[in-house]
Amino acid sequence: MYRLAIHGGAGTLSPQSFTPELEKTYHDALLAALTEGERILKSGGTSLLAVEAAVNSLEDCPLFNAGKGAVFTHDKTHELDASIMEGKTLMAGAVAGVTGIAYPISLAKAIMEKSEHVLLCGNGAAEFAKSVGIEIKSSKYFHTDQRLAQLMQVIDESGAHLDHSVHLPPDEKKFGTVGAVALDIHGNIAAATSTGGMTNKRWGRAGDSPIIGAGTYANNATCAVSCTGHGEFFIRAVVAYDVSCLMEYGGLSLDQACKKVVNDKLVKLGGEGGLIALDAKGNICLPFNSEGMYRGSIGDNLPAFTAIFQ
Amino acid sequence: MYRLAIHGGAGTLSPQSFTPELEKTYHDALLAALTEGERILKSGGTSLLAVEAAVNSLEDCPLFNAGKGAVFTHDKTHELDASIMEGKTLMAGAVAGVTGIAYPISLAKAIMEKSEHVLLCGNGAAEFAKSVGIEIKSSKYFHTDQRLAQLMQVIDESGAHLDHSVHLPPDEKKFGTVGAVALDIHGNIAAATSTGGMTNKRWGRAGDSPIIGAGTYANNATCAVSCTGHGEFFIRAVVAYDVSCLMEYGGLSLDQACKKVVNDKLVKLGGEGGLIALDAKGNICLPFNSEGMYRGSIGDNLPAFTAIFQ
Repeated sequence: MYRLAIHGGAGTLSPQSFTPELEKTYHDALLAALTEGERILKSGGTSLLAVEAAVNSLEDCPLFNAGKGAVFTHDKTHELDASIMEGKTLMAGAVAGVTGIAYPISLAKAIMEKSEHVLLCGNGAAEFAKSVGIEIKSSKYFHTDQRLAQLMQVIDESGAHLDHSVHLPPDEKKFGTVGAVALDIHGNIAAATSTGGMTNKRWGRAGDSPIIGAGTYANNATCAVSCTGHGEFFIRAVVAYDVSCLMEYGGLSLDQACKKVVNDKLVKLGGEGGLIALDAKGNICLPFNSEGMYRGSIGDNLPAFTAIFQ
Repeated sequence: MYRLAIHGGAGTLSPQSFTPELEKTYHDALLAALTEGERILKSGGTSLLAVEAAVNSLEDCPLFNAGKGAVFTHDKTHELDASIMEGKTLMAGAVAGVTGIAYPISLAKAIMEKSEHVLLCGNGAAEFAKSVGIEIKSSKYFHTDQRLAQLMQVIDESGAHLDHSVHLPPDEKKFGTVGAVALDIHGNIAAATSTGGMTNKRWGRAGDSPIIGAGTYANNATCAVSCTGHGEFFIRAVVAYDVSCLMEYGGLSLDQACKKVVNDKLVKLGGEGGLIALDAKGNICLPFNSEGMYRGSIGDNLPAFTAIFQ
């Protein structure tokens, strides 16, 4: 058995904001990412490689706030965050505030596999990337007119914005992140998350995406989780590991644990967003407390599913 | 009732490495930090202010790897990490890889109180510090001949070192970090952790100290925790929040939860170090799986205690 689930961010995503064409574009992009990941799982590849491939596909797509489609910071740069974790070994890699990396999730995986460290930050992380042969892209690679327009829309406002994409009203909260969780035929699970963070972000702000335990967690004994939402709340609630602990110590099922965290604990704290999760038995849960979440799933006996709204 | 516990790092600290004079110097420094924190608690101040004051005292002391006594990075700079959390509100602040900050724990507290964010990294964090009136120190402030000698000792070796101080053999593993947990007379708890990280560290490496859930966690309903040890393992094990979850979901006492995490789970994973923890009832636990841990505690009806070895 194999399983793959993905997300492309959560937030105020109402059907009336989408034309049928735009909606189809998102569904197609989600399906493409599922297909990339499934190709690996189907041929016996590991869940780690599958989540990397699915996230790479979303990092390549300018629709999503990660990799090529990352939002602009206040200083018109792109500061990228990502983390990845393997459920069999509890090995993990993460990168925060790095610039010039086309596929931050692959850098996180390289940190996990080729260094003694888990988390590398900023320019140092880019130096490490160079040392292992990962190309540093110029800022042009990440430039999209849509994201720049989005920055200009919010740059006069006081706070950094978490807008997902420019076709949505800028005063609504949207959380752009991508992620994947997978179960491979060997029974191992993995999780990965990648983001460009908040439009107009300053001061080297990082959310939950590079934080093992908050944005990403994987443990064969419990679950693999990738989060998307208002990162500050997800850090304070240690969301991804909370799902795992509710299962391991609280005896909850994957479904019960996910709903407890997303629809009860996070709501009480004021944290908007969602997550994708699966366990080694093949159960999948894709809860969110926002209006919508770009999401999808696929498996060997599970037809491809993609959705945006409730 | 009030309580305060502190640590100044854990590692291979054997009695034969210490002269009586050196041992006394450490005991005196720990007692000074306890005294600073207790002054606030005794006069009805908050646990948040008490952990800040205790950590500030340790950050000021060149014996400990935090603030003024921070170790040198590979590039002969000082990259400082810290995090703080308040158990009543679950509010938190953290800083990773910042330079020029005399009291990183106070910057973490300013991030918590004066920004919408939890985690700021690198140069951006220093910019934020300036914006709220925190002075940026020149690199001279952090220079100590002892730390430079320590860097020189290890710079030719392949890995970054976690050595605590130069009077210990460089081939042994020592983990320099400082931290505090407190319970105030209002029944609220808080936790704080600050470090200079690993001697000779590269690539913007961060350990568990700036990570809420890993190095630091506080929740009135469970416990306040500050960790010290081999940070990569502490991140992967989400140590601080694991103690909290074992209490909340697993029904363990503070003592049982701390020992399960430090003496069982971390040992199995290969993670060396320890932590300090307390709960809102005033229980204190200071477990470590290394040879020693600089530690201490004090309370309104609890005499001052400081220790280094088992």
